[in-house]
Amino acid sequence: MIKAQTLKGFRDFLPTQMVIREKVVKTLKEVFEEFGFEQLQTPTLEYADVLMGKYGEEADKLLYTFDDRGGRKVGLNYDLTVPLARVLSQYSELPMPFKRYQIQPSYRAENPQKGRYRQFTQCDIDTIGSSSPLSDAEIIAVIYFALKRLGFNDFEIKLNSRNVSYGIMKNCGIAQDKWNTTLQTVDKLDKKSIEELDLELEEKEMGSKLFSSSINTEIAKVSKNWTDNQDTGDKYLNQVYKTVIQLGVNTNNIQFNPSTVRGLDYYTGPVFETFVKDANIGSVASGGRYDQLIEQLGGPQLPAVGTTLGLDRICDAMEETNQSQSNQLSTTRVLVSIFSPELKEKSVELSSRLRSNNINTELYLDENAKIEKQLKYADSKQIPFVAIIGPDEAKNNTVTLKNMQTREQKVLPLQDLPNELTQ
Amino acid sequence: MIKAQTLKGFRDFLPTQMVIREKVVKTLKEVFEEFGFEQLQTPTLEYADVLMGKYGEEADKLLYTFDDRGGRKVGLNYDLTVPLARVLSQYSELPMPFKRYQIQPSYRAENPQKGRYRQFTQCDIDTIGSSSPLSDAEIIAVIYFALKRLGFNDFEIKLNSRNVSYGIMKNCGIAQDKWNTTLQTVDKLDKKSIEELDLELEEKEMGSKLFSSSINTEIAKVSKNWTDNQDTGDKYLNQVYKTVIQLGVNTNNIQFNPSTVRGLDYYTGPVFETFVKDANIGSVASGGRYDQLIEQLGGPQLPAVGTTLGLDRICDAMEETNQSQSNQLSTTRVLVSIFSPELKEKSVELSSRLRSNNINTELYLDENAKIEKQLKYADSKQIPFVAIIGPDEAKNNTVTLKNMQTREQKVLPLQDLPNELTQ
Repeated sequence: MIKAQTLKGFRDFLPTQMVIREKVVKTLKEVFEEFGFEQLQTPTLEYADVLMGKYGEEADKLLYTFDDRGGRKVGLNYDLTVPLARVLSQYSELPMPFKRYQIQPSYRAENPQKGRYRQFTQCDIDTIGSSSPLSDAEIIAVIYFALKRLGFNDFEIKLNSRNVSYGIMKNCGIAQDKWNTTLQTVDKLDKKSIEELDLELEEKEMGSKLFSSSINTEIAKVSKNWTDNQDTGDKYLNQVYKTVIQLGVNTNNIQFNPSTVRGLDYYTGPVFETFVKDANIGSVASGGRYDQLIEQLGGPQLPAVGTTLGLDRICDAMEETNQSQSNQLSTTRVLVSIFSPELKEKSVELSSRLRSNNINTELYLDENAKIEKQLKYADSKQIPFVAIIGPDEAKNNTVTLKNMQTREQKVLPLQDLPNELTQ
Repeated sequence: MIKAQTLKGFRDFLPTQMVIREKVVKTLKEVFEEFGFEQLQTPTLEYADVLMGKYGEEADKLLYTFDDRGGRKVGLNYDLTVPLARVLSQYSELPMPFKRYQIQPSYRAENPQKGRYRQFTQCDIDTIGSSSPLSDAEIIAVIYFALKRLGFNDFEIKLNSRNVSYGIMKNCGIAQDKWNTTLQTVDKLDKKSIEELDLELEEKEMGSKLFSSSINTEIAKVSKNWTDNQDTGDKYLNQVYKTVIQLGVNTNNIQFNPSTVRGLDYYTGPVFETFVKDANIGSVASGGRYDQLIEQLGGPQLPAVGTTLGLDRICDAMEETNQSQSNQLSTTRVLVSIFSPELKEKSVELSSRLRSNNINTELYLDENAKIEKQLKYADSKQIPFVAIIGPDEAKNNTVTLKNMQTREQKVLPLQDLPNELTQ
């Protein structure tokens, strides 16, 4: 006897969990498409050659690779950017700029821990082939409108640019070959104390108290200038910000923040992270401009800007900030019960009538079950309403509607039920 | 230099191909949920133990299995029914009946050929835990309403039952241990001549000319009775049919057909296949009742009925019967061009205004491109409209709208554009 269990590090999503995931995915797709992004899907398996050596040795160790029955070395996609780079090489006919979104699982053999799984869904949007600040601004506007439409109000997009960071590091006298290492340290500002960051930079032989005496002061200085005159010191970033506001983003939700550096080496221009207040889960949407990465990943030489929205984190944020509480946990609106075998047809007809009004309707499937059992079933599935046609209702052409939350019930004319349920 | 190529037997779906796939998936989900089916998602990887030995040796050879880095034997899901059986064993708290749908890829190391891929998407709906003919009828009604909503009118659901087939084989004097083999032969009636089927049964030592002299005659007899009195000879199947009609299925689209047997051994009651006329692609939705399979697959002992809708086949059928021709191949409705750097802001504002009316709007991302280049871009992406704000339009608060199909263009007040584009 084989034990029924989900593979370690992987997850099942039962119907009540899927309701919120589907809502998020549907909303993201809507907003992506409103901004002219179109969907791409790539397969789960790729030639291992396509996947290996793209993000360094540590990443290679996380790849799921194996030999298929034809002796090919294959692997499961590690992210959605490497397949994108392959697609850009392979289909030269794609119109440029290529604005694509992709919502698919990626696979990494990480040590599973809270919030980290071996299969996880990323929602990526990227604009390939444009060097215009309009394209950076659009990506940021998509994040804003997506979060707004999901019901978030209290969130902040923190905006910065590599050029601003480069200027700060120059002013601090840091040698250019130490810039990436410095940025990786600055990236930890949210998680570590200033003393710890000083120690870290000292250990990396960047200089003693470099963070507290110089970098931090320089960041504060740039930050202060911004408050005064809305100038980041970087012309490109200023244009991005201006366009973001023109696109309808509320100034309360976006903030220039020179301490927001993304730790990843490949960014070349604007970078951004998005934090939902009252949700202690890190950035829900991070990204930036990466003009050399597509080529480094084996694709053509094309400028690019994009973001990843983490589906799990957004769903978690919705739970933590109660966005999801007002929503039902079932996609079904009403359970049509069956009072008795003789009255079965009445219930079948009613279920059809409700569906023809596009109301999600479950017909109870056992004509011999007691009404109490049917009500319990509706409760266990969190279906908000139950409709009952007993002998009286059948005679009078009415229906009894029970609200499963308030436990109130009322009798109404049969033809009024669709309206009642769509209110 | 690594060659950019899709893994053999796998596919990329570029944006123009995704439009129709998304439309089909969205419609199927709508109809599934209207009938009270709720979504389940299971991971791509399972313990190999969960997958192996479920459909016989031949199927095991098609499994993608390998050892992960932790030394676990794992595999990619072969279908969606084995993971369903695992879920049913694992989560005893699931309310019964469990009406779930699942739309996910499955993976089989088949020899790739036209229409057969190593990764393919199945749309499964199943009702687990009900022995009522209502549940069989619902599955069939879902197929009907899904195809109708996708725009198909000319299709036929062929309905039969194992019990009818058993009666026919009994009357032909076929021993019970030969029934499955006989059904596998009868299942080929669409593809082979009567002589070939006779030969096949003879080779399997079932008897000479058994098909032409006996089975075929018996099938015709049962078929004829149906025409006369709507009685299949099987009480359960009669109830299913009656309920299907009560649920609103048009009698033109469903037909009792005693030669429709599904070749698979595990069916125990009603079986059905669905054919779209004018599309030469086999059944787009097949299924039936399988009361022992869930247990055989390692799940609990529960009755079940369900169907698989093949996403690829439905998309092919839409193309072959021109359902998709009237649809645009882009999700984007309009490209807002940029006339010149000075007029960029006007275009940015217009794109925002259109999006706030939920119109899918792409803003052209290069303020220095000639209008001709921008029109060509819209053509290459099959975007149906282009909006232009030049100096005159800016002065008069108007916009020029070009229909890319008719090549006609007209000038209209800026505030009228959203209405014009949602018509």
